[in-house]
Amino acid sequence: MAERTDEQHNEKMKKKQAAHEKIMANKTIEKGLLIVHTGKGKGKTTAALGMVVRAIGHGRKVGVVQFVKGAMTTGEKAVFDAFPANVEFRPMGEGFTWDTQDRARDIALARTAWEEVKRMIADPSYDMVLADELNIVLRYDYLPVDEVVEALTARAPMKHVIVTGRNAPDALVEAADLVTEMTLIKHPFRSGVKAQAGIEF
Amino acid sequence: MAERTDEQHNEKMKKKQAAHEKIMANKTIEKGLLIVHTGKGKGKTTAALGMVVRAIGHGRKVGVVQFVKGAMTTGEKAVFDAFPANVEFRPMGEGFTWDTQDRARDIALARTAWEEVKRMIADPSYDMVLADELNIVLRYDYLPVDEVVEALTARAPMKHVIVTGRNAPDALVEAADLVTEMTLIKHPFRSGVKAQAGIEF
Repeated sequence: MAERTDEQHNEKMKKKQAAHEKIMANKTIEKGLLIVHTGKGKGKTTAALGMVVRAIGHGRKVGVVQFVKGAMTTGEKAVFDAFPANVEFRPMGEGFTWDTQDRARDIALARTAWEEVKRMIADPSYDMVLADELNIVLRYDYLPVDEVVEALTARAPMKHVIVTGRNAPDALVEAADLVTEMTLIKHPFRSGVKAQAGIEF
Repeated sequence: MAERTDEQHNEKMKKKQAAHEKIMANKTIEKGLLIVHTGKGKGKTTAALGMVVRAIGHGRKVGVVQFVKGAMTTGEKAVFDAFPANVEFRPMGEGFTWDTQDRARDIALARTAWEEVKRMIADPSYDMVLADELNIVLRYDYLPVDEVVEALTARAPMKHVIVTGRNAPDALVEAADLVTEMTLIKHPFRSGVKAQAGIEF
């Protein structure tokens, strides 16, 4: 590719800017989004955490329900604790799945966590609700997908809901406004590197 | 698929747990990671922000250099401001690319921001450095990829560096420990929804 002159570059950037402005001018709708982070890669919970932090920073109130233990831990908790009026953090996945090997108990746990999500969705004081690793629970059929999708779809118009976890069910993807798949390209675990503070937890 | 009994389920979970523990026992290395978030989907900067929050929560010190204006904004700034000893936030992309249409100025801005990243990498007081949207700058050839990869690779062994932006150059992916590609499955902009507080900024 021939090197572009500064003038050619500036011309191209002007066109980009004009196209960008034209696109943005048509974006006028504000609505609560149903957001899904799925895929086998890292960053599903972490990106949701980033959204929670943004919302907190804007003075919004966020409810966080954790369906599986450990996905969200001490690192973020310390930060949430600095904004007690803005975040309600409910880690409800204590002992989920392979730690308990007790399916009936896991189903009951999933149900209790889900009731908490429904309460936060119904309460107008919450601007955003994060159902962290809800997809895992759906994957194991611990909650009926239909019931979950119906409740999420029936939320108030301005409420944002984020659902994370690999293997998002098709019906949830179908109902969602924004779906991102995190794809693993390269992972240090393969070279024997362990989970570290600030990265995994 | 036939319904599994509770016993079969528990048996499967036991096997999963054993396999998981075996894998984790081999993960003994702690090292600073070179992390890349790339792809056209959302969540690249947001997931990096989540990692920064985790690190802050663990009392680590993080340096954040923003190469392009707007990717990280008021929402996260308010949260960073609550932890002044733990985060140094340097938004250095003011007027980058299509806002300026001044290539020479953009190259100078990129150079200044890069020098700031290098300073943070060289300073042992920083545990983590986020070079937000550095990939964009590399894509425009505003900085030489070789120089950047060499500096990132030569960092101290325990220092984490996160680089975000679509179109990560091959040499950077090659040098990285952890690479995640964010893939867009569905985006609300297509239905005319505008950028909203807590989601995009």
